[in-house]
Amino acid sequence: MADATSMEKLVSLAKRRGFVFQSSEVYGGLGSVWDYGPLGVALKRNIKDRWWRSLVQSRDDIEGLDAAILMHPRVWEASGHVSGFTDPMVDCRTCKSRFRADKLADARCPQKPSKVPGQHTACDLTEPRQFNLMFKTFMGPVEESAAVIYLRPETAQGTYVNYQNVLNSSRQKIPFGIAQIGKAFRNEITPGNFIFRTREFEQMEMQFFVRPGTDDEWFERWRAVRMAWHEGLGLTPSKLRWHQHGPDELAHYAKAAFDIEYEFPFGWQEIEGIHNRTDFDLRRHQEYSGKKLEYFEQASGERYLPFVVETAAGADRVTLTVMADAYREEVVEAELRVVMGFTPQVAPVKAAVLPLVKKDGMPELALALYHDLREKMPADYDDGGAIGRRYRRQDEIGTPWCVTIDGETAAQRTVTIRHRDSMEQDRVSLDQVRHWLLERLG
Amino acid sequence: MADATSMEKLVSLAKRRGFVFQSSEVYGGLGSVWDYGPLGVALKRNIKDRWWRSLVQSRDDIEGLDAAILMHPRVWEASGHVSGFTDPMVDCRTCKSRFRADKLADARCPQKPSKVPGQHTACDLTEPRQFNLMFKTFMGPVEESAAVIYLRPETAQGTYVNYQNVLNSSRQKIPFGIAQIGKAFRNEITPGNFIFRTREFEQMEMQFFVRPGTDDEWFERWRAVRMAWHEGLGLTPSKLRWHQHGPDELAHYAKAAFDIEYEFPFGWQEIEGIHNRTDFDLRRHQEYSGKKLEYFEQASGERYLPFVVETAAGADRVTLTVMADAYREEVVEAELRVVMGFTPQVAPVKAAVLPLVKKDGMPELALALYHDLREKMPADYDDGGAIGRRYRRQDEIGTPWCVTIDGETAAQRTVTIRHRDSMEQDRVSLDQVRHWLLERLG
Repeated sequence: MADATSMEKLVSLAKRRGFVFQSSEVYGGLGSVWDYGPLGVALKRNIKDRWWRSLVQSRDDIEGLDAAILMHPRVWEASGHVSGFTDPMVDCRTCKSRFRADKLADARCPQKPSKVPGQHTACDLTEPRQFNLMFKTFMGPVEESAAVIYLRPETAQGTYVNYQNVLNSSRQKIPFGIAQIGKAFRNEITPGNFIFRTREFEQMEMQFFVRPGTDDEWFERWRAVRMAWHEGLGLTPSKLRWHQHGPDELAHYAKAAFDIEYEFPFGWQEIEGIHNRTDFDLRRHQEYSGKKLEYFEQASGERYLPFVVETAAGADRVTLTVMADAYREEVVEAELRVVMGFTPQVAPVKAAVLPLVKKDGMPELALALYHDLREKMPADYDDGGAIGRRYRRQDEIGTPWCVTIDGETAAQRTVTIRHRDSMEQDRVSLDQVRHWLLERLG
Repeated sequence: MADATSMEKLVSLAKRRGFVFQSSEVYGGLGSVWDYGPLGVALKRNIKDRWWRSLVQSRDDIEGLDAAILMHPRVWEASGHVSGFTDPMVDCRTCKSRFRADKLADARCPQKPSKVPGQHTACDLTEPRQFNLMFKTFMGPVEESAAVIYLRPETAQGTYVNYQNVLNSSRQKIPFGIAQIGKAFRNEITPGNFIFRTREFEQMEMQFFVRPGTDDEWFERWRAVRMAWHEGLGLTPSKLRWHQHGPDELAHYAKAAFDIEYEFPFGWQEIEGIHNRTDFDLRRHQEYSGKKLEYFEQASGERYLPFVVETAAGADRVTLTVMADAYREEVVEAELRVVMGFTPQVAPVKAAVLPLVKKDGMPELALALYHDLREKMPADYDDGGAIGRRYRRQDEIGTPWCVTIDGETAAQRTVTIRHRDSMEQDRVSLDQVRHWLLERLG
């Protein structure tokens, strides 16, 4: 995929096959908000579970956490989001619209007759003012300033304010980490590119607390671990690269930052950031809350505020990455074949069971096998239409293997297993199918 | 557990052992908002996964969905939430506070000196006005009425507006269902009882679409399925009961409604509702969107709006139910033993591996076994303190089995496995431990 056309094709397939739908579509949709359909939920769950397993379930030094979206408003004063998480905006006195001051060239005046982009600069614009990107709401029955709370713009702060609770209730010692998967919200002025940049999104963030002085070493370690994780999703290696933040790009809290970027049809974009956040956040929360957040290191008898190495990935972005990387078109026997080449571990459906024809006992054998497989993996059953057409349907949703019950199955107790990518077929004993598949799923 | 004391004990254990923390605790907390700690995340994930597996992964007639929290505001006009999802509120002209008109007896005047509850009725109160319980925010850069959107108060509407997309992209026919797990928000005036009633909460909702006329039958079927699911969590049978909504209690959309109630220390309360929502929601969305939402039934050639049987459970409530039901205190050898008697399938930690003493090669054997078990189940390793104390620590977090490496392990290749509830011990061959545990986890 190398252009805008391929994004259109991906969005179209996503809707047609039930990966992603536009939110509230019957009402014309809601800008840049998307819903996951049956296959999309399965795919995204596989990706999130894989992240959780690799960080929380298979390591001794990381604990899981699930903090609420709503938090005390002082959290966002301490973190710097209330004062600093802003975009510069200007109002046009003629058309009464509001635009990003740094993106005026992209602006469109909604007044009829439409003015051409850029004309606003010659128009009656106010001076730029800073507008906060946090969604604001009111808790309790009165809409007043004392009741203002925010939808969190990142999960990380939920980890920082819970860091001592986790430390006290687990038996972790520094170095250790806390991992979270959860929704965050940013009132972006220019969201877009399908599920790449949305106002509501899901983060997979891990904060690793280390002794100051060991942070550079841990930073490098986590860079390696996280890149390996993305490679393990089966992504094309040449489409992954590092982008190091220069001094101008670094966030106020960061000493160093590297993005893992993927080459989407719309260009290279960040899918995960690895940040050395130093002790910035804990220091600020200590200051704003008046509570000591220092760590007492038994071995040395020292007290210190730990440094934090953060790995921050977007679950929606990774899902889009996996979908964009998987999409391919081939011409097979003079016909277009669309394939989602998911690695089997994240594919929403692992195997489809297909009776060659709807007679001679084939559907019965196929259904029995299907129910046997369903106990151990997501499987599909399809007896509708020509077998070639059914293979194409499975290719399009990325099912790695199609198991076909044919004329020889009843007599010889064998089936064919077709490989999605090579389209080659193996003859396998019927009672070995489950084992054959489970072995390949690892 | 039969009183307020036991809730206090549960909340205390939840914090001490890392099940549930108060949100933003370092800032004094945020009213009725809670965060899940390491063990709480694990427990809640087990419950949610169990729900998802029973409804989506192990059935052919239910599809998964994950709709966004933000939706088009017309959705909430159609559903009746903008006009009808309200509580009656009164303002006190003296103290300038706002109270629920139907709960005045519980109200406290914040003015000093505090007035006694109930005095407001003799005070200077306004007439009751209806206040909407939906959290409101603004999307886009301008805070104006056209930009108002709401945080969804239920996941169900996300299913209704996607019902045709799911139907078109899957190969389901009526009867079929759509299941969702996701956050919802209600600006409750009187939340409380720990994680029972919170302003931010997670729902596990399934909407089952059926042919009108078959809805009563499906309603009864789903009642049975859902009660069996709760029983399968190992809850005390005598603490579960049905509550049928009388004509005065029925929601405007419901033809019939039954709650599954659990007897908490604070009384019998709803943990799941089974509702016959008729075609109310689809009819309203058809009307408000102007889009035909009828189903074409091939067999009969008829078109109709399906009826919906909804099963709506709260993930946080079920988690609280499982915790409250599991908590017990016993006196063992003149000491208090606190046990979380989780059924093994939902227990956050399945097995703990404990070397009897920190010498004679026991820690090495124990660590090897621990790493072996970790590949297949959440396990714990603990070598700190007397063995009795370590058993108690595991009892308190509900670990069903403790595997102890003792003096005989090296020579005889055997270990003891201690049962949490009976405290009896079995002698098991070291190389059979993993198999022994997996068999019991099913």
